[in-house]
Amino acid sequence: MATKTDIARRVYNHTWKLDPIVRSLLDTDFYKLLMLQMIWGVYPKVDATFQLINRATRFRLAEEIDIEELRDQLDHARTLRFKKKEMIWLAGNSFYGRKQIFAPEFLEWLKDFQLPEYELTKKDGQFELTFPGPWMYTSMWEIPALAIINELRSRAAMRSLGPFSLDVLYARAKAKLWDKVERLKQLPDLRISDFGTRRRHSFLWHRWCVEALKEGLGNAFTGSSNVLLAMDNDLEAVGTNAHELPMVLAALADSEKELRWAPYQVLKDWEKYYGGNLLIVLPDAFGTAAFLRDAPDWVADWTGFRPDSAPAIEGGERIIKWWEEKGRDPRDKLLIFSDGLDVDTIVSAYHHFRGRVRMAFGWGTNLTNDFEGCAPREIDNLNAISLVCKVVEADGRPAVKLSDNPLKATGERSEIERYLRIFGTEGQTEIGLKV
Amino acid sequence: MATKTDIARRVYNHTWKLDPIVRSLLDTDFYKLLMLQMIWGVYPKVDATFQLINRATRFRLAEEIDIEELRDQLDHARTLRFKKKEMIWLAGNSFYGRKQIFAPEFLEWLKDFQLPEYELTKKDGQFELTFPGPWMYTSMWEIPALAIINELRSRAAMRSLGPFSLDVLYARAKAKLWDKVERLKQLPDLRISDFGTRRRHSFLWHRWCVEALKEGLGNAFTGSSNVLLAMDNDLEAVGTNAHELPMVLAALADSEKELRWAPYQVLKDWEKYYGGNLLIVLPDAFGTAAFLRDAPDWVADWTGFRPDSAPAIEGGERIIKWWEEKGRDPRDKLLIFSDGLDVDTIVSAYHHFRGRVRMAFGWGTNLTNDFEGCAPREIDNLNAISLVCKVVEADGRPAVKLSDNPLKATGERSEIERYLRIFGTEGQTEIGLKV
Repeated sequence: MATKTDIARRVYNHTWKLDPIVRSLLDTDFYKLLMLQMIWGVYPKVDATFQLINRATRFRLAEEIDIEELRDQLDHARTLRFKKKEMIWLAGNSFYGRKQIFAPEFLEWLKDFQLPEYELTKKDGQFELTFPGPWMYTSMWEIPALAIINELRSRAAMRSLGPFSLDVLYARAKAKLWDKVERLKQLPDLRISDFGTRRRHSFLWHRWCVEALKEGLGNAFTGSSNVLLAMDNDLEAVGTNAHELPMVLAALADSEKELRWAPYQVLKDWEKYYGGNLLIVLPDAFGTAAFLRDAPDWVADWTGFRPDSAPAIEGGERIIKWWEEKGRDPRDKLLIFSDGLDVDTIVSAYHHFRGRVRMAFGWGTNLTNDFEGCAPREIDNLNAISLVCKVVEADGRPAVKLSDNPLKATGERSEIERYLRIFGTEGQTEIGLKV
Repeated sequence: MATKTDIARRVYNHTWKLDPIVRSLLDTDFYKLLMLQMIWGVYPKVDATFQLINRATRFRLAEEIDIEELRDQLDHARTLRFKKKEMIWLAGNSFYGRKQIFAPEFLEWLKDFQLPEYELTKKDGQFELTFPGPWMYTSMWEIPALAIINELRSRAAMRSLGPFSLDVLYARAKAKLWDKVERLKQLPDLRISDFGTRRRHSFLWHRWCVEALKEGLGNAFTGSSNVLLAMDNDLEAVGTNAHELPMVLAALADSEKELRWAPYQVLKDWEKYYGGNLLIVLPDAFGTAAFLRDAPDWVADWTGFRPDSAPAIEGGERIIKWWEEKGRDPRDKLLIFSDGLDVDTIVSAYHHFRGRVRMAFGWGTNLTNDFEGCAPREIDNLNAISLVCKVVEADGRPAVKLSDNPLKATGERSEIERYLRIFGTEGQTEIGLKV
């Protein structure tokens, strides 16, 4: 029996209308589910509009990607429901060492969850893609929308490559990733996880990357933020919370006092649902300096911080100093680094902080979408770009993110300026955004 | 339709007894067929024994490879006959621009060709593998025997690797080869062909390498010595003649005079069958210096030389000087380099000789079996070794090869010394053998 073509498969392929990018509602980040339970429990009546934001405007997305293809993929994602085996896994699995992290009532509601409608138009070579509606529905669009757009970009970029060039492309990408794995392997007691869903090159490549880390790093690979890949590979599903929580709460604030309190109100809400290693502070929504300056003492009781927009070493040092001022021993605390990491930054932060604080790395875009130098000829559109899906409005009021890096700020200009007056500009540093 | 396992295929795979390495008698080097026609025509009564010679005795082949597996593969090769479509292609294709290079009577005989019996035992961790019988049969064992042993070595070396490690291994090997291709692409008017059958890692890998050169080098890739791959990929089948011709004729010589004449008698015989670019002298069987010193003037009329055991630049310069002494313009002549080439040596010879002589490169082991640094952990047995299959006896008399590199000499010690007395030791230089 020589190599034979499977006739039925070939004929079926001829009938393909769509190769779906997102095939499961679990193909999302774990923190979305954690946040969703809290939103569902505490803010079920709040509306929040999410919107695609392309920070790299020189890439004209609507010229790279066919709008109908995008619509087909988004529509396909809207047909998905949680499968029975997925619901059983969510109910029966332990997360962060805790059983039944999801309440039965929440799961009962989740069972019928469907991604809500979206609005999509083209303008000036860009997509205007918004997700208006109840927060507890729209929030779930962030990850699949980004994964879909990024994979459609990859597909478009590779359309001109023949089978051989594609073979070389993936061979090189595999070799490149494995070289990174071998460097990371050298770091004893490293704790690193996959945070690469949103900006991944493609689902299949993401899966390969996760399998590579599992195979190559063993216990140092502490999990995946992607719930589906975590389930399928018997890995820990990891992640905690995101900027949308303080952003929405800040937008809803009726007074300056409430606005200042919003970042801490998030923590109060969170504590009702989660504990232990899930008590991770994301301090930079309106500037880390302001957050630390105004934080009540009990914030220092939380397990750790995830500095997400300052350089790892600078951001980590600032938090360690704060813990020490609050009389806490940083060696009992956890820093999670997750902003624009690659092997060099991981290695240097690892050596810098080793022994002084517990640390973990959430490796994203440079794990799941690093094809630089892999194509037989340079294809600019194959490089990941800085694309996000952010909450822009809550109950009709504009939402804002400042971050520690002004280039990562989102929101209306006048609102950003109001927030800057209230929270201050201390510690704001522009850092060029690669992704 | 998700990924489905082909049940019939899986069940068939369970019944596998053998994954044959050599599946076609065309899976051999083209020069074997050219030589075979001449041997069949001129020396049909001569017996010649070929023997496997492992120059890298630190590798204990019989401990790496199971003797029964080897026997199964050799036996399978003996079941092969030229297929009808193969015979039609040999008869109908043009080789080196000439139609009907193979005479109808020769093809008529070839139709029933079968590899002859072999003798295989183990001794001191090595195989004693010999092919006794009529030259026009035993000669054809050289390439399949080497390809089989080298692929069995690869299979054994990779047995400990899981599917993921194998994936990384081949990804790295592909990336590595493609980097070589990209370097070679920089050389205008390069002419390079695949000479890598005998020492290839495996047939499938060989095929990938040939496809890579075709895709990446275009017209600079001038063909493959492998007849099957040439046929399947619409490439030129390339190659001329080998040391076995002068070695057998020398062994048959009844006098010192006849012995001295043997290397030129080969050329006389060859000219009866072939012309043009097939008139390539292989000068080093008993030392290039002796060959050039004693060569009749008409040898300078031949199209080119293939220096095969001296460093490319040194060997090429010697021949260019000789052409000039004979009043020939080297720019009309062709040098074919084929000894232990890799990109570095190709690039340096290319730049050294460019504009002074026509040149072509026959790229062998480092094309089809370079896995250094590709395995997730170093596997010594995955590196190619210096394994040859040489004629050791003709009509009961010992055969000898001196070469320009004493480490490549084969034959009985006393005979080597007799040859050295007759041909001299001028120009003999030891060069460590990698492959």
